[in-house]
Amino acid sequence: MAKIKELNIALLGLGTVGKGLVNLLKENENEILNKHNAKVNIVRIFERNADKLEKFGLDRNLFTDNMQDIYDDPSVDIVVELLGRIHPSKEYIEGALNAKKNVVTANKDLICMHGNELLKIAKSNGVVLLYEASCLGAVPAINTLKNNFLGDEIKSIKGIFNGTTNYILTKMTQEGLSYADCLKEAQALGYAESDPTNDVEGIDAAYKLCILSRFAFGLDARFEDISKKGITNITPQDIHIAGRLGYTIKLLAIAKCNDQRLEMRVNPVFVSNNHQLSKINGAFNACTVEGNYSDEITLIGRGAGSHPTASAVANDIMNFAHKMGDVGQRVLKKAKMEKDGIMKYYLRMSILDKPGILSVIAKIFGDNKISIESVIQDKNENPEVKSLIIVTHSTSSVNMNKALDKISKNEAVKSVDAVLEVLG
Amino acid sequence: MAKIKELNIALLGLGTVGKGLVNLLKENENEILNKHNAKVNIVRIFERNADKLEKFGLDRNLFTDNMQDIYDDPSVDIVVELLGRIHPSKEYIEGALNAKKNVVTANKDLICMHGNELLKIAKSNGVVLLYEASCLGAVPAINTLKNNFLGDEIKSIKGIFNGTTNYILTKMTQEGLSYADCLKEAQALGYAESDPTNDVEGIDAAYKLCILSRFAFGLDARFEDISKKGITNITPQDIHIAGRLGYTIKLLAIAKCNDQRLEMRVNPVFVSNNHQLSKINGAFNACTVEGNYSDEITLIGRGAGSHPTASAVANDIMNFAHKMGDVGQRVLKKAKMEKDGIMKYYLRMSILDKPGILSVIAKIFGDNKISIESVIQDKNENPEVKSLIIVTHSTSSVNMNKALDKISKNEAVKSVDAVLEVLG
Repeated sequence: MAKIKELNIALLGLGTVGKGLVNLLKENENEILNKHNAKVNIVRIFERNADKLEKFGLDRNLFTDNMQDIYDDPSVDIVVELLGRIHPSKEYIEGALNAKKNVVTANKDLICMHGNELLKIAKSNGVVLLYEASCLGAVPAINTLKNNFLGDEIKSIKGIFNGTTNYILTKMTQEGLSYADCLKEAQALGYAESDPTNDVEGIDAAYKLCILSRFAFGLDARFEDISKKGITNITPQDIHIAGRLGYTIKLLAIAKCNDQRLEMRVNPVFVSNNHQLSKINGAFNACTVEGNYSDEITLIGRGAGSHPTASAVANDIMNFAHKMGDVGQRVLKKAKMEKDGIMKYYLRMSILDKPGILSVIAKIFGDNKISIESVIQDKNENPEVKSLIIVTHSTSSVNMNKALDKISKNEAVKSVDAVLEVLG
Repeated sequence: MAKIKELNIALLGLGTVGKGLVNLLKENENEILNKHNAKVNIVRIFERNADKLEKFGLDRNLFTDNMQDIYDDPSVDIVVELLGRIHPSKEYIEGALNAKKNVVTANKDLICMHGNELLKIAKSNGVVLLYEASCLGAVPAINTLKNNFLGDEIKSIKGIFNGTTNYILTKMTQEGLSYADCLKEAQALGYAESDPTNDVEGIDAAYKLCILSRFAFGLDARFEDISKKGITNITPQDIHIAGRLGYTIKLLAIAKCNDQRLEMRVNPVFVSNNHQLSKINGAFNACTVEGNYSDEITLIGRGAGSHPTASAVANDIMNFAHKMGDVGQRVLKKAKMEKDGIMKYYLRMSILDKPGILSVIAKIFGDNKISIESVIQDKNENPEVKSLIIVTHSTSSVNMNKALDKISKNEAVKSVDAVLEVLG
């Protein structure tokens, strides 16, 4: 085994995502070591004051409020920018790149507006700038466009790039409520900001569409070129009519391109209920990429939040480690194959309609440590017997087999007709 | 611009996927040149007889029925194996690797059973073996596991890895038909083979689960360790009960792993209707990967077929080209940003209930080259007016704006209340 590769990072910003990253690096330290033969150390944290570090259980010696400390520290391999907003993040990243530090950022506004400029600075300094987390949180949209569709012509990307508006539209659709009521609820739950403009007017989705379009089409897509229309005028009436016609209203970011023409827009769309994007509910994000040979590929996942966004940041950090080329091979896991699966069960059996039979069966489950989620007695094709349907909580298949063995020997049980796993 | 990189491939097998690849390389020749500054030439085709090439419009000089010709041809960079089955594909690939040819294959049985052995032979010869197309057709499952979740601990992969069984289960669910009837229909449509055992007993899905588990968990997963249960015993009754309880029955391939224990199985599962996998219908494939920080990421797309599988093969070929390191930068597309979008429209307007008004509005659309897909007259909140709802076919937004301008000036039109894009 080669020597463990040490990667030192300077973290700018100990906010929601910054804290998520600190947790990830701690919790997954062994996993990262086994997978990559690498260790990621946080050696500096740029914040307003050191108390914030201490409150989060971090050594206050990591603290700095001076970017020059980071530029000048020869041990820093990667600067991770999680401050957000364009200024002063842009100046900090420029400074880091010019100090020959590699940079990982989750800053969509900045990458949308100045990404190409920053990539040039990175290139001229021989360092890398990665920003998977700038688009769709944990959904690996940028990596997917980088590593796939290489022989295809990508014809379009379409997606649900904003969780706040999808949450609101889902609520409006499922409960018939007004936009205003759903916005209020989203604000109360922390899904929408007190000034929701960037989300509800399609601006946030347009940032991401702009970034992804560059990867999809190999062109210098500009934010200004994207037409933006939000969801503030969507009425329950239109949502209702959409449902009657077989559609669901979603705020879609859409870019279509061929050699001659490019269309880019964010707007509410009647999405056919046969299309995957119609089925993305709540705060989830999704992106559908259409290649001329692959046809449509859809990615779905959590587009925001501390852990999902930290996951994308960590992926860039480890991707950079692999680009450096001296990361060790993955260690083969030694997990033991289990015959005994842990799962929920659906059972359907035909039983004689005798008093007390249910309690007998319930006792057999209890004796085998199987707890029951729900029970239904149902008609059977044979009028002399009833169908007994049971959904269990998670249990071991070994215990279930023992219970089934006992149950099938009970004379009131005519047959066990179905034994299936349950997910969710 | 650097010199164009030429890649020469020898194609084994001119079947469905082979023909798809030939078409892709021809149709996307310019796209590949612009994206990668590379050109892919087919220099040899291994088949039983040369007529097959000629019938498909290919030069019969490319023909060989002797693998030694390919091993001995110094111009061949990549051997693309699309013959299927384990033998003699295994011997051909071994021969190619030992002749220091890189290999791309779509052969899931072979990679499942002998992938690790072949990877060792590739490594010892300093060449690569790629097989994205062996799992889920165009869905980039292997690449996604290779390039993402690098900082996460992957806890599980779950998916619909077989289109035939998903088609049958979808039919059973939507139409209440029996397994036998749906199998017959799938066979008539070419979705199922005359001997459907590999599909309906979960064997095909288990091959793919085995391959993907190696990438997900970094372990040497073995086909024999996977418990396999098919869909032949699924009854309309269980599907009906599932629906009543808020579930949909799907054949899922499932692997869960932590340091201590590994569970791998293919079996029919009651999937909660809140889970993305419950919503994958027809012949589509899907894979959900759960990282401890990313949470669940789901990929959906076409898991089989000539074009989707060729897309995955072509991606491996171009990925190899990038590994060689002398592929040019992508040329920036020069597509012109269009203000004029092409889309279907949903329109809702409030109109006075006067005879002839519909024909006036229809004429305005016709004059602007907009054709109408459907029209609904509906009640309005205001009893004196009616809601007129129109869904159009694809049209230009410039034409739509002209039509709307004219319509809104008509005195019988009280207001245009909603103008939204329609997808699907």
